[in-house]
Amino acid sequence: MVPHLVPRWPVCLFRWRAACTLGACVPQSAWARASRTPGPGSPRGAVGTSPLVRRGGSSSSSRAPEVMLTRERYPVQRLPFSVVSEEDLAAFERITPGRVVTDPEELEASNVDWLRTVRGCSKVLLKPQTTEEVSHILRYCHERNLAVNPQGGNTGMVGGSVPVFDEIILSTALMNQVISFHGVSGILVCQAGCILEELSRYVEERDFIMPLDLGAKGSCHIGGNVATNAGGLRFLRYGSLHGTVLGLEVVLADGTVLNCLTSLRKDNTGYDLKQLFIGSEGTLGVITAVSILCPPKPRAVNVAFLESPFYVLIETSGSRAGHDAEKLSSFLEHVLDFGLVTDGTLATDQRRVKMLWALRERITEALSRDGCVYKYDISLPVERLYDLVSDLRARLGPQAKHVVGYGHLGDGNLHLNVTAEAFSASLLGALEPYVYEWTAGQQGSVSAEHGLGFKKKDVLSYSKPPAALQLMQQLKALLDPKGILNPYKTLPARA
Amino acid sequence: MVPHLVPRWPVCLFRWRAACTLGACVPQSAWARASRTPGPGSPRGAVGTSPLVRRGGSSSSSRAPEVMLTRERYPVQRLPFSVVSEEDLAAFERITPGRVVTDPEELEASNVDWLRTVRGCSKVLLKPQTTEEVSHILRYCHERNLAVNPQGGNTGMVGGSVPVFDEIILSTALMNQVISFHGVSGILVCQAGCILEELSRYVEERDFIMPLDLGAKGSCHIGGNVATNAGGLRFLRYGSLHGTVLGLEVVLADGTVLNCLTSLRKDNTGYDLKQLFIGSEGTLGVITAVSILCPPKPRAVNVAFLESPFYVLIETSGSRAGHDAEKLSSFLEHVLDFGLVTDGTLATDQRRVKMLWALRERITEALSRDGCVYKYDISLPVERLYDLVSDLRARLGPQAKHVVGYGHLGDGNLHLNVTAEAFSASLLGALEPYVYEWTAGQQGSVSAEHGLGFKKKDVLSYSKPPAALQLMQQLKALLDPKGILNPYKTLPARA
Repeated sequence: MVPHLVPRWPVCLFRWRAACTLGACVPQSAWARASRTPGPGSPRGAVGTSPLVRRGGSSSSSRAPEVMLTRERYPVQRLPFSVVSEEDLAAFERITPGRVVTDPEELEASNVDWLRTVRGCSKVLLKPQTTEEVSHILRYCHERNLAVNPQGGNTGMVGGSVPVFDEIILSTALMNQVISFHGVSGILVCQAGCILEELSRYVEERDFIMPLDLGAKGSCHIGGNVATNAGGLRFLRYGSLHGTVLGLEVVLADGTVLNCLTSLRKDNTGYDLKQLFIGSEGTLGVITAVSILCPPKPRAVNVAFLESPFYVLIETSGSRAGHDAEKLSSFLEHVLDFGLVTDGTLATDQRRVKMLWALRERITEALSRDGCVYKYDISLPVERLYDLVSDLRARLGPQAKHVVGYGHLGDGNLHLNVTAEAFSASLLGALEPYVYEWTAGQQGSVSAEHGLGFKKKDVLSYSKPPAALQLMQQLKALLDPKGILNPYKTLPARA
Repeated sequence: MVPHLVPRWPVCLFRWRAACTLGACVPQSAWARASRTPGPGSPRGAVGTSPLVRRGGSSSSSRAPEVMLTRERYPVQRLPFSVVSEEDLAAFERITPGRVVTDPEELEASNVDWLRTVRGCSKVLLKPQTTEEVSHILRYCHERNLAVNPQGGNTGMVGGSVPVFDEIILSTALMNQVISFHGVSGILVCQAGCILEELSRYVEERDFIMPLDLGAKGSCHIGGNVATNAGGLRFLRYGSLHGTVLGLEVVLADGTVLNCLTSLRKDNTGYDLKQLFIGSEGTLGVITAVSILCPPKPRAVNVAFLESPFYVLIETSGSRAGHDAEKLSSFLEHVLDFGLVTDGTLATDQRRVKMLWALRERITEALSRDGCVYKYDISLPVERLYDLVSDLRARLGPQAKHVVGYGHLGDGNLHLNVTAEAFSASLLGALEPYVYEWTAGQQGSVSAEHGLGFKKKDVLSYSKPPAALQLMQQLKALLDPKGILNPYKTLPARA
């Protein structure tokens, strides 16, 4: 019976109880920035305390410790792009009057990722309001050979949303208008800078829901969600953005506007170009508008939180509370009878539903209190999902404080987190490339839903064969021959 | 309430009762080949009787009237590909021993499309069994500059699956093995030549269903379904192949094997290359294997056939018969109370369910008995879906015998069919480009689910802007620089 639940119900949390007790008290805000900063020499994503963090820059001496510059921590060379000149700034001022940000204080938040692991040194951030403005900016940058870092809510996990050097930051923050919503089909068309939570509110008032939901919903932009092919909490139920995104408007590297912003469920006129940009992390074009299919708002929602050796959070949604409760009860009877589950609790009212979800959504934050965190986001065949966690506990022994595995059971997506008091090169050496090799050995993916960005680009080949990598590089060269769009991201540097 | 039904239930048939009475008796076989042949001078897809059909070739004088050669009917020039030589045949014999077909009788079925509207004159058909053989064939053809027409079940509606001239036919018929099936996740991996109905049977025995279903299921290949991004009867419920296809193995024009055949729900390692090939109609690569997500088999299926001014066929599927019947009853009460529906019937047993579906599935065949049929497959905003039918009735007057609109209400997909006693250039002139312009005026798609193939490639620009067309041509040039893969299809000839 259990297999049948997989595609109908989001089964979204599982975690070894020994790894971290759920009673651990963490602050309310699930989206608070971690105050700790990454350790030095942890180039592949460890987050934690470090005695070597450089404090204080000219503009932020009174605030949190400054994050080390990416170019100082990682072995990365600036490509020969032009440097922004006074003439360029004047040109940008003509394109986006009053929306050219050069103030260092204001720039800082956009130069550093939210995990505080990477930091660029961009000197200018542009805030276009329209597709035409984005087109003018890119045409100009293309001609001038200026590199551009497209940025949505800057909530990425892999350093894809901030500059590596001095790339111009192209923010979608002011492109936040709903263009249309169709009350029968549920098709929403909006600008790329709309915040996911605001879109959720907008469509929920009209009896629909967004097909995706993320912990970062309060900050992330729909354009960024699409550009990174965000997964999240509704993936199991409503599927991938490759299926729910119906159309995109994209500005290409040379400023060409590619309008594939249809609101049609079916369109087989030629190649489905929008798919190229879903998950390409801003390296092939800048998404300026999105057409997306919203499912009807469920009338009944049940959340079950179950215990066995694992904690399991299950959400069901349907159109009749009575029917759903009946199905859920008989499922619970079944799993209790068979000893699959030993204890649990049910919630239907909003407050308790939110409380149970908070247990899941606050894990990232809770982990950041554990010291230095080594983070991995991998896909595995569902029956092997937890094996890597057990394996690593044995392998690492006391080197690791905790080896925590949680994630999306129905999607085969494991969020693997290894914590230690402080960064250690030997722990990193025990983890990498071991974790990637282990994953590759299972035909898994070394990035399930977080993407590659800057921090994971060099592990792409663990999950993709050389022919695929070559074609990706050819596509990049075709769409962005000067390589100005989000350079140093997604694809490994060419040899 | 009705809007909520859209994404949950397939609402799959509607037809103006005056257009064609359902009592019309047609033979049992829903997939019988139409015996009529197209009229001359009807280059854009009319199917019907014609006094000018050329009968009898050297090899088929005793059989159905021969279909006119595409190169004789359409203004199309053969591109400068090489011509298959005796040496080439010997080389193919080495690659696929005993599976090189040159017998004209055997070749005929693969040179003509099932609608009997287009006909190539290929002299050789190859039947590889493995990906390696496909790779060897393409590497050889690429070197020799020989054009190749990949062919699945040859069930396409737009002339995409048969050669236009003497392209080598590369059949997937012998690539029909299931590679793996995962009984928990429902992920099926199989070779491209598996017949959809056989896969359906295979997964249904394991308590799953295929995420797509088509009238052509008895003949069509899964590789062809993916290559044409087939829609069909389960689209509304389970979504597009862009969402349900998890991985593909594709052989590129030069013989390179691109292995993206993962069985993972989530994989964000670089660009999602498989998406390029979904819907590219064999023009960018030959799909050799498919990984696809199958939903659990519903335990309860209800079919309602309702009458108002339209006939509406609704199928529901769920896990509890009692619950589903209750929901359906209250829906029916509601629509009857509001006068939205005047009459109808319900079916739950298999036999009656099949009988009701046959009413829908036999429409194509029934129409072919009406004389010459002009066929269009368009997407429109759902509220405008039927307007074109009424509009055309007024516009065409007695020139048309019937103007029939049916299709997929929930998907906004109209199958528009105009019938007449015989082909007439003036009727064609009244239909085209009017139908395409009307569709473009509604931001619709001139090919919803049938693709462009050979017959619709020149109307692409009604639904796609020049920048999109240019990028498609660049992608074609990148992936198939010699243009050997399914030439004369999908993209308009370059000026």
